[in-house]
Amino acid sequence: MTERRDGRGDGLIDLETMASMSGMEVLQKILRGELPTLPIAKTLGFSVTEVEEGRTVVVSKPGIEHYNVIRTVHAGYTATLLDTCMACAVFSTLAQGTGFTTMEFKISLLRPITKDTGIVCAEGTILSRGRRGATAEGRLKDANDKLLAHATTTCLIFPLETAPS
Amino acid sequence: MTERRDGRGDGLIDLETMASMSGMEVLQKILRGELPTLPIAKTLGFSVTEVEEGRTVVVSKPGIEHYNVIRTVHAGYTATLLDTCMACAVFSTLAQGTGFTTMEFKISLLRPITKDTGIVCAEGTILSRGRRGATAEGRLKDANDKLLAHATTTCLIFPLETAPS
Amino acid sequence: MTERRDGRGDGLIDLETMASMSGMEVLQKILRGELPTLPIAKTLGFSVTEVEEGRTVVVSKPGIEHYNVIRTVHAGYTATLLDTCMACAVFSTLAQGTGFTTMEFKISLLRPITKDTGIVCAEGTILSRGRRGATAEGRLKDANDKLLAHATTTCLIFPLETAPS
Amino acid sequence: MTERRDGRGDGLIDLETMASMSGMEVLQKILRGELPTLPIAKTLGFSVTEVEEGRTVVVSKPGIEHYNVIRTVHAGYTATLLDTCMACAVFSTLAQGTGFTTMEFKISLLRPITKDTGIVCAEGTILSRGRRGATAEGRLKDANDKLLAHATTTCLIFPLETAPS
Repeated sequence: MTERRDGRGDGLIDLETMASMSGMEVLQKILRGELPTLPIAKTLGFSVTEVEEGRTVVVSKPGIEHYNVIRTVHAGYTATLLDTCMACAVFSTLAQGTGFTTMEFKISLLRPITKDTGIVCAEGTILSRGRRGATAEGRLKDANDKLLAHATTTCLIFPLETAPS
Repeated sequence: MTERRDGRGDGLIDLETMASMSGMEVLQKILRGELPTLPIAKTLGFSVTEVEEGRTVVVSKPGIEHYNVIRTVHAGYTATLLDTCMACAVFSTLAQGTGFTTMEFKISLLRPITKDTGIVCAEGTILSRGRRGATAEGRLKDANDKLLAHATTTCLIFPLETAPS
Repeated sequence: MTERRDGRGDGLIDLETMASMSGMEVLQKILRGELPTLPIAKTLGFSVTEVEEGRTVVVSKPGIEHYNVIRTVHAGYTATLLDTCMACAVFSTLAQGTGFTTMEFKISLLRPITKDTGIVCAEGTILSRGRRGATAEGRLKDANDKLLAHATTTCLIFPLETAPS
Repeated sequence: MTERRDGRGDGLIDLETMASMSGMEVLQKILRGELPTLPIAKTLGFSVTEVEEGRTVVVSKPGIEHYNVIRTVHAGYTATLLDTCMACAVFSTLAQGTGFTTMEFKISLLRPITKDTGIVCAEGTILSRGRRGATAEGRLKDANDKLLAHATTTCLIFPLETAPS
């Protein structure tokens, strides 16, 4: 029950729990089901499946519920998977007491994705990690390792004591 | 019933219907409920509410179901709204027999969005429209007209007879 | 003589001078010729012509020396003008003792630019300004106010005492 | 003498010469000095040093002439090198009678570059190549293979008979 996990009943991780652990610890607890996953992962249907320092993997299966008007997967679905794996790659490098926020990302759509594409896999890796900022890259591939989409992101890193500005 | 509207029973607009109308006609029929909306709009909860040539508006209300791990709306939700209004702005300029595909977009996240933000409004407008390509801009605002996020996109335009490459 | 202005003889503004003024003061002194302009402005041929808080203008005249292989202006020239006006727009908002660095920018090329385009004008404006980051937008136009290119940038802001990371 | 190479006296490759060769042939002739290089390469000081199908390398040595106000290399210089290697990577895949234009690029600046950085090397590679569009990636590194900047670009591809739109 997520209610008991986070102690608030809204299915979210509370801020005190977040502040008491490193980013890697939070992500590993989510992976093991000891903390609730991000709500949008349930809404769109995807999972974080691998976490190591500076690299994470997100897996999903595109379906008609992700379609746009022109009978292919909406770029917003693709963007969500790529933003997640990149943000989690940055999050995995954060020490306890450190927060981050995504400032921007760009996504390039390389091949159309449909419900027949099957399982897709988004891998996020750090390109550079400074004290105040980080840049990460994401690659979305199908089961045959064909590149479907590419993305880069810029994140801001800050001490959690002070609110992000 | 969408089954009868599109004649296929999968809740999608069939290709023959798409090819028989201009982009503007398709969008206006979606707006009037005469053609089914894009499936991801039901999954994430948003609507196209205004369509004119080169400009469209998408409206949504962010909730916990759109949240990421850090108790704010996931950037993928924001990206989906902005990509939709920009792609529809391009689509609204297409003559019958013309198709398009989004090549890339970039999104800048300017202010955090939560369930307390209330209704948000994404407006897409064309920056330039050539024979083979188009660039559009998107702005996401709250009800007080405060800018929450900004995006730009590049689309490829092509005759529908030949498949996009 | 720039040698005497900056006290180092390399035509650059020294760090002590930079640290003793706000961004606006530095930019206004460059505008009045009391501090040396940025060296790349001489190499490529452009000038900062207007500075107000959160908005600056850069002017240039494209020529054959800016061309690429395909007889139009190289996108790198366009990018340099746009990056300059956006970075200066951010710089103009910085209090004394504050530094910044550009993390990324994206540029969309809307119309070809040639030596016959004449004077072009790049205007940078702030989209959002936080304590640790800023986002700005740039628009490059010709003398008839036709939009030639568009850009957005993300900058990191930090106290000058500590080096950027 | 470039005047005799291109038959026009303006140091540029004429359109007839461009249209008579594949992109690879044009690039190899530039590499061997049989066709003039792009003018901005002389203005900023860089060379295309390697060309194979879908991959090119650009080399330069940053100096004070590339500096911005804050005593590091201007992002416009970095953008020019990366745009060149990515555009040439796309150009190298074009058959005779085919043209291209850069629609957009994004650049992420990962580490500061100064005159002490020494020789830098920008490598452009194709991420995807369709009939009407291409996406390429660029990586700028120092002599120790440290990543200094990253970029992605979107290009439009079209038959040369009809003008780009």
